Amino acid sequence: MTATLPDRETRPSTDRHRLSVVGGLAALSLDAMASVAYGPEAIVIVLAVAGGTGLGCTLPVTLAIALLLGVLTLSYRQVIAAFPDGGGAYGVSRAHLGRRASLVAAASLIVDYVLNVAVSVAAGVAALTSAFPELRPCTPWLCLGVLALITGVNLRGIAESARAFIVPTAIFVGAILTVVVVGLFRGEPAAATPDHGKSLQTVGILLLLKAFANGCAALTGVEAIANAVPSFRKPRVRRAQRAEVALGGLLAVMLLGIALLIGKFSIHPVDGVTVLSQVTAASLGDGFGFYVVQFSTVVLLALAANTSFGGLPVLAQLLAKHNNLPHVFALRAERQVYRYGVGFLAITSALLLVLADGDMNTLVPLFAIGVFVGFTLSQTGMVRHWLGARPRGWRGKAALNGSGALLTGLAAIVVTATKFGEGGWLVVVALPVLVLAMEWVHRSYRRIGDRLELGRIPSPPRPNRSLVVVPVHTVSLLTRDALAAALSLGDHVEAVHVVHPEDDRAAFVEAWERWHPGVPLVQLHDERRRLGEPLVEHLRKHRGCHVFVLIAEVEPEHPWQRFLQNRRGAVLARALRRRSDAVVCRMRFRVPG
Amino acid sequence: MTATLPDRETRPSTDRHRLSVVGGLAALSLDAMASVAYGPEAIVIVLAVAGGTGLGCTLPVTLAIALLLGVLTLSYRQVIAAFPDGGGAYGVSRAHLGRRASLVAAASLIVDYVLNVAVSVAAGVAALTSAFPELRPCTPWLCLGVLALITGVNLRGIAESARAFIVPTAIFVGAILTVVVVGLFRGEPAAATPDHGKSLQTVGILLLLKAFANGCAALTGVEAIANAVPSFRKPRVRRAQRAEVALGGLLAVMLLGIALLIGKFSIHPVDGVTVLSQVTAASLGDGFGFYVVQFSTVVLLALAANTSFGGLPVLAQLLAKHNNLPHVFALRAERQVYRYGVGFLAITSALLLVLADGDMNTLVPLFAIGVFVGFTLSQTGMVRHWLGARPRGWRGKAALNGSGALLTGLAAIVVTATKFGEGGWLVVVALPVLVLAMEWVHRSYRRIGDRLELGRIPSPPRPNRSLVVVPVHTVSLLTRDALAAALSLGDHVEAVHVVHPEDDRAAFVEAWERWHPGVPLVQLHDERRRLGEPLVEHLRKHRGCHVFVLIAEVEPEHPWQRFLQNRRGAVLARALRRRSDAVVCRMRFRVPG
Repeated sequence: MTATLPDRETRPSTDRHRLSVVGGLAALSLDAMASVAYGPEAIVIVLAVAGGTGLGCTLPVTLAIALLLGVLTLSYRQVIAAFPDGGGAYGVSRAHLGRRASLVAAASLIVDYVLNVAVSVAAGVAALTSAFPELRPCTPWLCLGVLALITGVNLRGIAESARAFIVPTAIFVGAILTVVVVGLFRGEPAAATPDHGKSLQTVGILLLLKAFANGCAALTGVEAIANAVPSFRKPRVRRAQRAEVALGGLLAVMLLGIALLIGKFSIHPVDGVTVLSQVTAASLGDGFGFYVVQFSTVVLLALAANTSFGGLPVLAQLLAKHNNLPHVFALRAERQVYRYGVGFLAITSALLLVLADGDMNTLVPLFAIGVFVGFTLSQTGMVRHWLGARPRGWRGKAALNGSGALLTGLAAIVVTATKFGEGGWLVVVALPVLVLAMEWVHRSYRRIGDRLELGRIPSPPRPNRSLVVVPVHTVSLLTRDALAAALSLGDHVEAVHVVHPEDDRAAFVEAWERWHPGVPLVQLHDERRRLGEPLVEHLRKHRGCHVFVLIAEVEPEHPWQRFLQNRRGAVLARALRRRSDAVVCRMRFRVPG
Repeated sequence: MTATLPDRETRPSTDRHRLSVVGGLAALSLDAMASVAYGPEAIVIVLAVAGGTGLGCTLPVTLAIALLLGVLTLSYRQVIAAFPDGGGAYGVSRAHLGRRASLVAAASLIVDYVLNVAVSVAAGVAALTSAFPELRPCTPWLCLGVLALITGVNLRGIAESARAFIVPTAIFVGAILTVVVVGLFRGEPAAATPDHGKSLQTVGILLLLKAFANGCAALTGVEAIANAVPSFRKPRVRRAQRAEVALGGLLAVMLLGIALLIGKFSIHPVDGVTVLSQVTAASLGDGFGFYVVQFSTVVLLALAANTSFGGLPVLAQLLAKHNNLPHVFALRAERQVYRYGVGFLAITSALLLVLADGDMNTLVPLFAIGVFVGFTLSQTGMVRHWLGARPRGWRGKAALNGSGALLTGLAAIVVTATKFGEGGWLVVVALPVLVLAMEWVHRSYRRIGDRLELGRIPSPPRPNRSLVVVPVHTVSLLTRDALAAALSLGDHVEAVHVVHPEDDRAAFVEAWERWHPGVPLVQLHDERRRLGEPLVEHLRKHRGCHVFVLIAEVEPEHPWQRFLQNRRGAVLARALRRRSDAVVCRMRFRVPG
């Protein structure tokens, strides 16, 4: 999956805390490694409709995908050299292809972040239910539970440490490689693979294309390292390039190894048991080793889902800074968490999981579309880059990125065409809708910016007459403190008492006059027992001066006592905000609980 | 059910709009009439365990209940004379039995209002599913749907007109009386009643007590007229008394008539078909007449549930005014609706419906307990009243109310004892919990009132030095207007700029100095990128003077554009509210959309 965008703020502060080749590989390859859990299955599930003959094509299709992986790896090696500050699809497109293209890239990234969460969670739960079939009926609930857990952790804010990812990634890669090696040396499957019926469809070119398109989901995540070059130790570019090549190599070995085993043990897709867990069982048996692989898969997939929570909020923050998304996405409240980005990601991926009923094979096909759109845009941007900069050997570099763009562009078309009916239309609709929404947000902010004359030097502020209005309804210390604060502000102070039919108007006037606070009292009678409207109407008479309404409220010491508050202040403040231009000032009178 | 408490505000303004005897009977007897739908069933369902012999006791048990009804009706005739301003259980207990007893009465009223909603909705849906058995599987959802509908109508606010209730009540009473009369003259059941197995249990005294206790749910609502005397036309007391007697008479006739028919047609409780609809089918056949009765039952029950929405919020408002409930229950926002009371009623009754799975026979037994507690308290209060006032014939009156108190007190004990295991414990627990909670709220408000020195004349307000702090983060019209407003307030104005590591500090200072607004600028550096905390810490230096923080925000013209706001103001206001004593002033800069 597309990974965390470079953000100056998240960079480790000293070089010692930065990533080595191995560390970077572990920390940034989570998404890519995780695709091993659903990529091969995505191929097999398509080919299985053509029975044994079809499944025989698993290896060739995987080889084609590995070839594309090779080209992509080398292309991204160049991206690393050209964008040592990190070159996400959004950044590269913004620099070389213009605003509109960068918005398309951003939209595809957003779609991918969301899909990565949904797919990873669904695949993780599938790995779990493969090991414990009795959990299968509650698949959707398990998915939402895992999602809620990840969301909760991210809303609280985590001290992100790339190093925490090294161990689970290493265990997962080690486990998969063990499965491959042991499997290749074994004559017979260690555990019986489930039986299956034969299908009559022949293997046509369309079927192979579909399998290829589906399997391309395995390529998600290879761009992560290129996005995060600044996180590496010096020499950054060199280390990042090595990590990228190592990632490509490892991923290719795992994918091809699993494809070989699928052929060797003639594995077929079975409802409720993932292909990977069938391969594992055939290779290691269904004992301790099997559970190690399954658990490490679950953990890795949960962590892969978590990377979206690191990535999307940072991307959304960048888009908000560029006025393409609402500014709340750039708001990091006191917890230092982009809670709106996290919330958006959680809600949309939960929706996807509910719609797909937690089934990973429904979600995987949607995944590749957005990924390839992003790949194509960033590779095309790179070609523009080489054409503009023309360093030594630019022709070769442009050719490599160009062929990458061509291949991923073709793959994008193939994936979209073959997957359109199976949910692909959702992505095809979502991308332009997102782009148009971002354009609309951008226009709105430009209009607001024009109104505020941002970038121009305004005239100096000129003071005006001011009137401080204090709504009162008791004679008490609360009222006294409110009037004292209002009088400190100088100019004119006016106490306003809204009287309802059942109120004892005279008694209040009497108490007021006995107190004699030296502030004029205005009584507003309202037959309809409204709180805000009489005051709003009264304030209409005071145009031409700055009107401040000072609302004094009792604030209990403990938050759990807050339900004792009468909320009149809140109702009043809301009415004033909606229907007047007065500045609403709220004063808290603290009462020990 | 206990009905709307008298509220000066809801009284019709002229006598012409007040209630005649017939109008009052229709408008205020909804709850009582509605009990016909579940009262007889509550008896039959207990007696059925003893088979045919048991069911033969339906008439005697109903006679006992009718006797109690007679005593209650006469007792309430006296309550009407003694409390022409309306004498709810809460009011009578407050006047004659002290605060603690009045809180017990209030708690029992609250429990009854909630149960009335749950029981009426469940019974209405049971009437509906008796007519349309194919709807039965979605009973809980139908219940929640009806509840949501009633809640929605009440949250929007309805122009309450007692007259609107006359037609459905008249149709229902007419329909039931028709069923009774036609049934009594018919030899054979018009439609076959479902068959059933015999049970072997003999009819013991305990079973009869249980049936009596269960059937007492039919008595809920007879106090409604006594609570609403001020709504009648003059001579109020006379008219209200006539309506009360008419209600008692009608209710007794309907209950006894149905009991006779149950015996005559040997009706047995059947799962999914209410007893009332069996009686109707036996009497009128399953044609047009049957559906008229069923539909009028559904409508009447929905309206009966609705009366709780008229009653509980008004009672809660009264309790809040007496400082026994949080003051928000007395808050009537611009829509003139006690939304917190409505919300509380909706949520608690929804919970009950969900817990009971929408089954009316689970809920009915809980109902009578609270009702009889309220009956007993108000009758006891009446005895105290007569003992204190001693008007002509006070002995006889005290004796009548005394016997009412005794009977309902005994009934309360019987009902609680026989129903304790079947959910009665819930009411037994809820009553003291509610009373304790109200005591706690009362104590808290008294403490707050002491702090505010309510009722004493405070010292006059003394002005102090003031400082107006304006958080800034751009040089724009927004900032200019904020500074202009702050300068209008006089004394000292200070602009504060919170700087985060990634911000260009020098650029802002340069723009500020080029503008030269004549206001000192304070830059606060925060490494941890917080918004509120640096300001809160800065304000700590300014103790000893009134500090105002003026937050200027862009307010788009259309509410749907609100998500474009950056919410920095809200985060800042919240931090200041929590951790400083500054008065937070929020200024809106309106931008046309």
